Amino acid sequence: MPAKSLITLLTDFGTTDAFAASMKGVILKINPKATIVDITHEIPPHGIHSAAFVLKSAYRYFPKGTIHVVVVDPGVGGSRKPLLVVHPMGYFIGPDNGVFSYIYKSNVKVYRLNTLRYRLKQYSPTFDGRDLFAPVAAWLSKGIAPVKLGQRVKEYMSFPIPEPRWFADNSLQGQVIHTDRFGNLITNITPEELKPWLSSRKPPTIIIKGQTIKGLKQFYSQATPHELCALINSDAHLEIFLIQEDAQSVLNIKNDERVIIS
Amino acid sequence: MPAKSLITLLTDFGTTDAFAASMKGVILKINPKATIVDITHEIPPHGIHSAAFVLKSAYRYFPKGTIHVVVVDPGVGGSRKPLLVVHPMGYFIGPDNGVFSYIYKSNVKVYRLNTLRYRLKQYSPTFDGRDLFAPVAAWLSKGIAPVKLGQRVKEYMSFPIPEPRWFADNSLQGQVIHTDRFGNLITNITPEELKPWLSSRKPPTIIIKGQTIKGLKQFYSQATPHELCALINSDAHLEIFLIQEDAQSVLNIKNDERVIIS
Amino acid sequence: MPAKSLITLLTDFGTTDAFAASMKGVILKINPKATIVDITHEIPPHGIHSAAFVLKSAYRYFPKGTIHVVVVDPGVGGSRKPLLVVHPMGYFIGPDNGVFSYIYKSNVKVYRLNTLRYRLKQYSPTFDGRDLFAPVAAWLSKGIAPVKLGQRVKEYMSFPIPEPRWFADNSLQGQVIHTDRFGNLITNITPEELKPWLSSRKPPTIIIKGQTIKGLKQFYSQATPHELCALINSDAHLEIFLIQEDAQSVLNIKNDERVIIS
Repeated sequence: MPAKSLITLLTDFGTTDAFAASMKGVILKINPKATIVDITHEIPPHGIHSAAFVLKSAYRYFPKGTIHVVVVDPGVGGSRKPLLVVHPMGYFIGPDNGVFSYIYKSNVKVYRLNTLRYRLKQYSPTFDGRDLFAPVAAWLSKGIAPVKLGQRVKEYMSFPIPEPRWFADNSLQGQVIHTDRFGNLITNITPEELKPWLSSRKPPTIIIKGQTIKGLKQFYSQATPHELCALINSDAHLEIFLIQEDAQSVLNIKNDERVIIS
Repeated sequence: MPAKSLITLLTDFGTTDAFAASMKGVILKINPKATIVDITHEIPPHGIHSAAFVLKSAYRYFPKGTIHVVVVDPGVGGSRKPLLVVHPMGYFIGPDNGVFSYIYKSNVKVYRLNTLRYRLKQYSPTFDGRDLFAPVAAWLSKGIAPVKLGQRVKEYMSFPIPEPRWFADNSLQGQVIHTDRFGNLITNITPEELKPWLSSRKPPTIIIKGQTIKGLKQFYSQATPHELCALINSDAHLEIFLIQEDAQSVLNIKNDERVIIS
Repeated sequence: MPAKSLITLLTDFGTTDAFAASMKGVILKINPKATIVDITHEIPPHGIHSAAFVLKSAYRYFPKGTIHVVVVDPGVGGSRKPLLVVHPMGYFIGPDNGVFSYIYKSNVKVYRLNTLRYRLKQYSPTFDGRDLFAPVAAWLSKGIAPVKLGQRVKEYMSFPIPEPRWFADNSLQGQVIHTDRFGNLITNITPEELKPWLSSRKPPTIIIKGQTIKGLKQFYSQATPHELCALINSDAHLEIFLIQEDAQSVLNIKNDERVIIS
């Protein structure tokens, strides 16, 4: 894998404190040639599911060999394992709390980061992002092999990724799994499940919170104002939206809200 | 033009989702040597006027040949053209919806990005930022010529930039066109229009929402608390402010609010 | 000192306007090889104390020779001096208003940036960040010596850093000096002051706003929900927190809130 000097950061640290910047300083001290890209630092505090979803959406667009550091880590200092995941597309470094649940769908090797040598000498039990994950990412980017950074493990945590369910009448039930910046509602339904409708050219009927949507749009500006609509989004998920409005706020929708297709 | 490996991003994507990061991944996959700078991702959703204004304020400070990618694009997927603008100071890539209105005041060549070759193979009609604009920026930064990226066009959209108006009594009417992070009110009045007052050393009287300001300050800390003041700001616009307060909130001012100078 | 092409930015500009991006453009125009890292742009407007604290937390993690540009500068344009501070760990550029109070605890040389040659030709009295501090940082990163950039001065402003106080009964009074993104309350009490308790293994009793905390945790996840707790944080400060809650909001605590240890 080439391009190992590219390191991304995905955290719930926000950008008002020194947390994210300290990680960057640590990385650049070890590898001044590293290129660092922020995926986001705005994951809601302790939002493991949200982090896992944003990571899944982003990582595929980075070069092979990119090192992704994910620090949404309420269990820091406790017994949860610090991990390095070697994946066909790159490397993932972070806590064993489910943030890599989507990543584990591929063929991966997982290492527990238990080599003291590559963490900072001044180590705080409350900030592995800075004192363990950042230096390990930097050393990895300099060519240190995964086997030197930790020990292979076979057990690691994954949260159940909600899958759409089929009913006897051939209707499908999914749910909202993420809301984006625009208030668009992203569901766990993908073109795969929508095949019966897409191939038959029979437009699906979509029901969410008592509201009915007939058929799919191709892109946002096909919708008319205040008309609840749906499309396949750029991340290959069924997405429900209001043109130039925040559907999440207008409909007061929570994550997990049920979506029925028939 | 040198320095073509510098690419800036200006969007309304926010930083909580994977949108902006995906664009960076796409760019660095094509050109690992590109330097990427965020201008902002905090343009209000679909805020074309705001994007145009922030772009105008920022681009002049970047090296010649910088590539600016602007994705505030409610019409994505529809008939609005994707554009590359070649400008004496650099390159501008984004939708044909008015975001480049200030840029068109210079001598430019405009290309419609209709060459399929330089967009991502997996193309979504809802995310040109990632699938078209980012890869085109990256290829341009690697030396691909504009004529290979698209076809020259003579028609493109510009919104009317509000100009101050003179009245028979030599008073001047402008308006607020932007509010900054501090709540400072930026108007469309520039030193050019203020010449009659500046050259005669006759201090202007400024009226906004029934409040009167006498004369101009040179810098912020010349003001006293709760005293509405004005100065020529760092971007060469007349700006109305309250020292260490948010003038926009205190006076409840909207964009387009009228400002009279006499 | 090596690594001088690394420049950090710490401001109260937010990221919605062109301010921070303009500074980056200016730097990259002078030194295209500079690496720029944002510490934060989210310091509360004019929050000099907050800027000083975040700077103190971050700078130690950057390579020797890093250039830190700090622009929280309500007095811009007035008589406050623009400064370059040469510190054993690197360089600090910003206004003489107290933002470097923690930095001055080390052995430093301070220069007043009064050489017109290294500021932008088009100079605005309201934006030294862009027109003076950014170009000086860029020139410094290219090897221009501090003595060429300004004149050595012996007087510069420091605000009093609040120190914990001992009482006759061997109890200790400190205060909250910063609240982080998670609502955790960071105090001015460090392991140094806590030695009597830490060495005797006699757990300290901590009182804040009528609430009592017995002993210290090692890390966050040792706490149980809704239990007010304390630990030594990753920055070596006593920190008071609620697990997965915002202690600052729940207890309605202000900066300066008193904390008693006995």
